[in-house]
Amino acid sequence: MAFSSQDKQYMARAIELAKQGQYTTTPNPNVGCVIVKDDVVIGEGFHQCAGEPHAEVHALKAAGSRAKGATAYVTLEPCSHYGRTPPCAEGLIKAGVARVVAAMVDPNPQVAGRGLAMLEEAGIETGSGLLETQAKALNDGFLKRMEIGLPFVTCKLAASVDGKTALNNGESKWITSAQARRDVQIFRAQSCAILTGADTVLADDAKLNVRETECDITLPEGTSLRQPIRVIFDSQNRLTPALALFQFPSPVIILRTSLDNTQQWPHFVEQVVVPNSGEKIDCQSVLSLLAERGVNRVWLEAGATLAGVFHQHNLIDEFVVYLAPKIIGHDGRGLFNTPELTHMNEITALNFTSVERVGDDIRLTLRADP
Amino acid sequence: MAFSSQDKQYMARAIELAKQGQYTTTPNPNVGCVIVKDDVVIGEGFHQCAGEPHAEVHALKAAGSRAKGATAYVTLEPCSHYGRTPPCAEGLIKAGVARVVAAMVDPNPQVAGRGLAMLEEAGIETGSGLLETQAKALNDGFLKRMEIGLPFVTCKLAASVDGKTALNNGESKWITSAQARRDVQIFRAQSCAILTGADTVLADDAKLNVRETECDITLPEGTSLRQPIRVIFDSQNRLTPALALFQFPSPVIILRTSLDNTQQWPHFVEQVVVPNSGEKIDCQSVLSLLAERGVNRVWLEAGATLAGVFHQHNLIDEFVVYLAPKIIGHDGRGLFNTPELTHMNEITALNFTSVERVGDDIRLTLRADP
Repeated sequence: MAFSSQDKQYMARAIELAKQGQYTTTPNPNVGCVIVKDDVVIGEGFHQCAGEPHAEVHALKAAGSRAKGATAYVTLEPCSHYGRTPPCAEGLIKAGVARVVAAMVDPNPQVAGRGLAMLEEAGIETGSGLLETQAKALNDGFLKRMEIGLPFVTCKLAASVDGKTALNNGESKWITSAQARRDVQIFRAQSCAILTGADTVLADDAKLNVRETECDITLPEGTSLRQPIRVIFDSQNRLTPALALFQFPSPVIILRTSLDNTQQWPHFVEQVVVPNSGEKIDCQSVLSLLAERGVNRVWLEAGATLAGVFHQHNLIDEFVVYLAPKIIGHDGRGLFNTPELTHMNEITALNFTSVERVGDDIRLTLRADP
Repeated sequence: MAFSSQDKQYMARAIELAKQGQYTTTPNPNVGCVIVKDDVVIGEGFHQCAGEPHAEVHALKAAGSRAKGATAYVTLEPCSHYGRTPPCAEGLIKAGVARVVAAMVDPNPQVAGRGLAMLEEAGIETGSGLLETQAKALNDGFLKRMEIGLPFVTCKLAASVDGKTALNNGESKWITSAQARRDVQIFRAQSCAILTGADTVLADDAKLNVRETECDITLPEGTSLRQPIRVIFDSQNRLTPALALFQFPSPVIILRTSLDNTQQWPHFVEQVVVPNSGEKIDCQSVLSLLAERGVNRVWLEAGATLAGVFHQHNLIDEFVVYLAPKIIGHDGRGLFNTPELTHMNEITALNFTSVERVGDDIRLTLRADP
């Protein structure tokens, strides 16, 4: 199917709609839908929450009987299976649409082309691949989980311009500005899990929640802010129930090499023993475990040791680096504890995918070469 | 004097003109001049080289007899003294201009308001302070040298995004991209002196010249590229005449704690013994010495030790930091060797004055709070 500039414009709108679900759809993907007839938009929708109607259902409802003979633009292939809702491909067929344009095929093995095939069998003209790159960017986490069973991992770092996260004595309040710290709240809100180490929790007595009052985010009507699962590496059983983390009643997973039955934990805390070699927890196993629980996006907000281990094992998909206009110098603490490199070609090649000013600081985003 | 939007527009043009001299005027300032009559530009000029006519002379020559009754816009107060050329204030009076607008008063103690006073005494309407900030930015180096007898020091740094300049074994070719290294040539060309340590020269067998073929710069007609003086800290007399540095016939100053008479140096090399405490050369004395020789801008392109000493003594006015999208990790070499800080409030507050992409890298410019 050849796409026109009108097709492109409507798909761009569907992508905009899909973004409105970015804080709420997990473990489901973000999806937007636009239904158009005679060059007039007759229905729009996006997926808000798992268990709630899909984007197509909202758009078809708005279009009503006018959907007959219309074109539907969807950012992800319509589903073909019965989940908590009936298949959207069926809905589109029943409504009598004439043409369906998808930005991409659904990598979910339960769909994977079957949605488009079902539509074609019903005599509907179909096409896919329009604005595919943008559509994929909507669902980095969902796609990676579907494709290789791991969540998309973003590593957050905050440092002086010379790459130091703290003074040598550990003092770090505050290297970056209040605006940068507010900005972090938005990324946390987009994540399904926040992952860190016990040392970070203990050093700051951090709650690691999303502070709603500090978030400049717009949630779909009728939905509320989702708190990411807080996942803490604690191989040495150093956490205690008195910490601020456990005063905020929202799920916590403590990763351990052996259970700690000496303490009384609140009901929202789960201890998970994960594969390890002695005192070292296997990071990839942790990510697999989180993916199995439907975690699409992980926000890794850790110290140099844990960040170093994740980096060393190539488990980080994206780096978000806040740099403050400060110089700490030689004795400050670094960003990554990793083994020594001996050749320049051992360095992972990354790209700056964005460079932005955030208050007095800058935010750099880096990813590996695609 | 109140300034109109026309005044502002002509002064902006004068500033553009002044910039054309940025590679050639030193030790003189960059100055531009526009002469306007009945809202028509009748003469333009800028200062090209010390010893050559000033901006006003070029503009008056172009205007000819039409200058009578015109307004002259100059980015710096017209001079009032006989140097290698007669005073420009005199030239403007003779030409019969009715009004002179200067962006700023000349801080040169030989002028310092006398130029404007001379014009006023001749019955010419004068004003100053229009686009003063932009005009000052043209001559950071000249102004600092006139005001406090020190050159403006820019410290160039190149590192991975985690602030490492090299692997632990010293390997550093190349952390930043070819485009970033070309970009550096432009800054070198704008500088009067390149300052570094013997260790940097020895490590790379660096020539430290401006490589004209790598420069995307436009020089005024009839002028040629000026090579900055290469100034090397060599307190341990480690440099030898066989180094590549000495194969490029352009001035070198070797800073020493005692003369080295054991070697035969080329004619363009000067050894200078500077104030020191034993093996340590006093950096501020070096800068004073360079200012006395008419050096307006110093480009400090040094390793972590020398950069650290300059930073520690607050001798750096501007940082130009190239960051490559790479992570080197814990064992890489850092940017500044400075004494340990114990409180966050000991950190110098800087500002990001620019954030730019340069090829695959980014270039950050930082200055202290004004």
